[in-house]
Amino acid sequence: MSIENNNLDKVMRDFLTLKKIRRTGWQLRGIKECESIADHCFGVVFLTFYLAPLVKVKLNREKAVSIAIVHEIGETRVGDIPYVALKYFENKDAMETQAIEDVLSPLGNKVASESLELFREFEDGSTIEGRFVKAIDKLEMLVTAAEYEKAGFSGLKDFWDNKFTFKTFEEFPELASYADFLLKNRSKRIQGLL
Amino acid sequence: MSIENNNLDKVMRDFLTLKKIRRTGWQLRGIKECESIADHCFGVVFLTFYLAPLVKVKLNREKAVSIAIVHEIGETRVGDIPYVALKYFENKDAMETQAIEDVLSPLGNKVASESLELFREFEDGSTIEGRFVKAIDKLEMLVTAAEYEKAGFSGLKDFWDNKFTFKTFEEFPELASYADFLLKNRSKRIQGLL
Amino acid sequence: MSIENNNLDKVMRDFLTLKKIRRTGWQLRGIKECESIADHCFGVVFLTFYLAPLVKVKLNREKAVSIAIVHEIGETRVGDIPYVALKYFENKDAMETQAIEDVLSPLGNKVASESLELFREFEDGSTIEGRFVKAIDKLEMLVTAAEYEKAGFSGLKDFWDNKFTFKTFEEFPELASYADFLLKNRSKRIQGLL
Amino acid sequence: MSIENNNLDKVMRDFLTLKKIRRTGWQLRGIKECESIADHCFGVVFLTFYLAPLVKVKLNREKAVSIAIVHEIGETRVGDIPYVALKYFENKDAMETQAIEDVLSPLGNKVASESLELFREFEDGSTIEGRFVKAIDKLEMLVTAAEYEKAGFSGLKDFWDNKFTFKTFEEFPELASYADFLLKNRSKRIQGLL
Amino acid sequence: MSIENNNLDKVMRDFLTLKKIRRTGWQLRGIKECESIADHCFGVVFLTFYLAPLVKVKLNREKAVSIAIVHEIGETRVGDIPYVALKYFENKDAMETQAIEDVLSPLGNKVASESLELFREFEDGSTIEGRFVKAIDKLEMLVTAAEYEKAGFSGLKDFWDNKFTFKTFEEFPELASYADFLLKNRSKRIQGLL
Amino acid sequence: MSIENNNLDKVMRDFLTLKKIRRTGWQLRGIKECESIADHCFGVVFLTFYLAPLVKVKLNREKAVSIAIVHEIGETRVGDIPYVALKYFENKDAMETQAIEDVLSPLGNKVASESLELFREFEDGSTIEGRFVKAIDKLEMLVTAAEYEKAGFSGLKDFWDNKFTFKTFEEFPELASYADFLLKNRSKRIQGLL
Repeated sequence: MSIENNNLDKVMRDFLTLKKIRRTGWQLRGIKECESIADHCFGVVFLTFYLAPLVKVKLNREKAVSIAIVHEIGETRVGDIPYVALKYFENKDAMETQAIEDVLSPLGNKVASESLELFREFEDGSTIEGRFVKAIDKLEMLVTAAEYEKAGFSGLKDFWDNKFTFKTFEEFPELASYADFLLKNRSKRIQGLL
Repeated sequence: MSIENNNLDKVMRDFLTLKKIRRTGWQLRGIKECESIADHCFGVVFLTFYLAPLVKVKLNREKAVSIAIVHEIGETRVGDIPYVALKYFENKDAMETQAIEDVLSPLGNKVASESLELFREFEDGSTIEGRFVKAIDKLEMLVTAAEYEKAGFSGLKDFWDNKFTFKTFEEFPELASYADFLLKNRSKRIQGLL
Repeated sequence: MSIENNNLDKVMRDFLTLKKIRRTGWQLRGIKECESIADHCFGVVFLTFYLAPLVKVKLNREKAVSIAIVHEIGETRVGDIPYVALKYFENKDAMETQAIEDVLSPLGNKVASESLELFREFEDGSTIEGRFVKAIDKLEMLVTAAEYEKAGFSGLKDFWDNKFTFKTFEEFPELASYADFLLKNRSKRIQGLL
Repeated sequence: MSIENNNLDKVMRDFLTLKKIRRTGWQLRGIKECESIADHCFGVVFLTFYLAPLVKVKLNREKAVSIAIVHEIGETRVGDIPYVALKYFENKDAMETQAIEDVLSPLGNKVASESLELFREFEDGSTIEGRFVKAIDKLEMLVTAAEYEKAGFSGLKDFWDNKFTFKTFEEFPELASYADFLLKNRSKRIQGLL
Repeated sequence: MSIENNNLDKVMRDFLTLKKIRRTGWQLRGIKECESIADHCFGVVFLTFYLAPLVKVKLNREKAVSIAIVHEIGETRVGDIPYVALKYFENKDAMETQAIEDVLSPLGNKVASESLELFREFEDGSTIEGRFVKAIDKLEMLVTAAEYEKAGFSGLKDFWDNKFTFKTFEEFPELASYADFLLKNRSKRIQGLL
Repeated sequence: MSIENNNLDKVMRDFLTLKKIRRTGWQLRGIKECESIADHCFGVVFLTFYLAPLVKVKLNREKAVSIAIVHEIGETRVGDIPYVALKYFENKDAMETQAIEDVLSPLGNKVASESLELFREFEDGSTIEGRFVKAIDKLEMLVTAAEYEKAGFSGLKDFWDNKFTFKTFEEFPELASYADFLLKNRSKRIQGLL
């Protein structure tokens, strides 16, 4: 490998963090033993891989999957900042960008640059693939919220009331349709009809 | 989407299982709150994505990443069968193949076939990408074992003594070199030199 | 002891597994920190011991308790195979039989044979005691499901809708009556009347 | 059943407590996700069942197993009082006796009396079976301590230095021999020879 | 320091216990990964500190906070005795008093005496500050119960039906008013209006 | 109370967060089920209360305890930022200040101002009490690290090598002496002499 073992070892340490840190949003709602960031990341990668070829909008699947792999790397350093805390982190975007660069630079500039560009597409929504992964990121969260609710957890209403979440689906009618399906099932479940 | 919400929902249920089930190997060695299968899957995807372009052997990165995404899907149905239990599961390969087909068929035959072929490359080692992901699968396990050992867990010796694990690296000198680096650091750590 | 320490030590290792592995059925329904297999085993032993003398059907309590102790030993090797996975394990019975033999053979053939016979009575329902423990095995599961539901978990409906579960009680009117009592209380609880 | 569902339900509630409460001794030594009381109970029942026929001392296996089943029932009400706290509980024996009576009385006086007598044999060591289960109770604890130590936990030295523990084995040479085997293996493990 | 490191070290060991032991009341209701005793203690200290200056009744805040810090120290030795177990612990008060003395005596008699007096005010309700902290102790429990119920846990009804809990608020109308507010919100939540 | 129930309720929600969020530093080193922020806060309050009267430096105990209660409130909103992440949070101090103000303003400006001043003394080290609590904050961390190490966790070396930690003790010889005592015991423990 053109890279040294010491450098590879640094990257390992950072990626392992994603398995150790749990998603803050669930914890704040009382789901103490909730999923890790890596659990979520695999969900986004998995759904991107399987749904990209099925939606009508034309997508470069390889690029979309790459964005999905990259999109949370900044959290290895910055942590999973909860929604309510965003007002204190005005420069969250810059922080994550810097973090990605720091995490990946041991693999060489080319690798780091590629990932930074992919992250920018996700964050800025500048490409259809970036916007698709953003939508999948939200869909994966809703699917997980529904699963926690089926198991009995109940403080997750605001996940379903969030307009920004549903706005990301507008460009992808199939995702919007499935999110609507989840919403309706949730409604039935709450009324005891399911 | 050409597929129905009901079918998509079935796939979701299966993929969520990967977040819920913990890796049996760690549990049997007393690491009670160990990683999930999804945690491990993300690790394999992540390392495949970043290491594929860095090794000398020429690889189709897109295909390798796809194999990494697919390689544990069978466990959504079959569970994570521990090493010591393999003797009771003579037809493990057939079971996992059937499980992948069952999990993915709601997305259509084309999707299921593609994934089955990718799984075959992994299981049979019939392509360089299949063998690479097999090696990364083992490397990710060693990296995680080293992390647990650094944290204080100590019943993991047999992970390091396993010849089959190290055999997968032979075709990829960079992975072999890094596995050797891990092994040496482990040795120093045990002697209290690190 | 006629047996050697090394052999005894092997058996210990296997029995300890029952404390480490959690019951898959609860985990798949989102109860992450659910009971272990040993927790369940103690429940079955306890209920067998206390209910055997109270039911009208005449039972050999000693034999019933012995079956209760033995009935999950196979899982030390094979793991707790979830209901949905059974279709992939056509030879589950043979696997568990082989596993029990492997686990207990260090204690000598006589011990292993006795336990295999007890397991057969449980699995085949060939004796009244075997069928009683099968019924208690199900009752203990329902009692535990009710407890999880009281605590707030809610994805357990299919445990209560399972005809095979209730069929095991038919031979023991007292167990059937109590299962019915649990079912009615559950119904009231869901309607908010309890 | 001669007993009512309501009474049976009371007993269920108490026995379920044994699955919910973890063993205090491990928790105080930093093993946060340690075994439940029920886990330990199953261990004692299991080892009593399999070792009773193998030791030279003649034992009534049925009685010994019954004592093993009964011996921790008092903890459903009183909790698992740690060793260091014993000085504050001068009347622990009376408390547990009362608790057993309260737990089992819904099953009728005959059942409660039988269990109280079995508990007395355990607590007073008035029969060989009572003393055997006391020894197994300690052996199961050592086996579990060894398992935690193999996994990496390390604050358990005082379990091995406790003379009262080893004194219970004197009457049963096979148990003494195996406890010695555990002790020697522990010593090797600490020196890095195992 | 007038005290020796060895003595200080003893106190540390005891205080650390409060972080390790979970509150029994929640565990018995199926909240397996519930708060620690130290979690609760910080809640009582925090609420005492912020509410003492806001209630109309005149209070010595410093003294009230001190009582809050001291009030659970006995549990480092005695454990968290659940409500249902109180009948077995007739001398609980004497046990906790002795435990506090044992825990703090390494810091000198003056320190131990001061804390024992503060504990007496809490236990006997002999001062307004002692009664205030008793009320806060209950309020903190209700606030936590409400939080668990919002998260989905549901076996906590008896916490809200307990007259002794609400009786402690009578002397402090602001606490009574807020407890009433919690009770009303709970009622709305259960009816699905919140 | 001069404040409304709605406002009080907002403060409750924030303080409860401190029980839900675990300390990031331990998690990153593989202690998955580590203490909560509230656990740590109680430790700092407890040690401040008991050590303030015992050190030679003259301290206002009431003020020191108040600082201890206040010092982590900002984390209810901002989370527990790990050491390695500090480079990405240049304005951490301003963020926490704003967070404290937001958390406490429902209790009125007077309360918020008092706490902000106390936090400033802690953060700026402008008073002896502020510096004492900073030292106790570090000491509590070392005591907890030692406890985790005794339990078997082992990736905590950098906590002991941190010069900034030990620098806070210089002004308080008794704390420095005890920290040194911890360090020496740790050294013996690692050499197997303890």
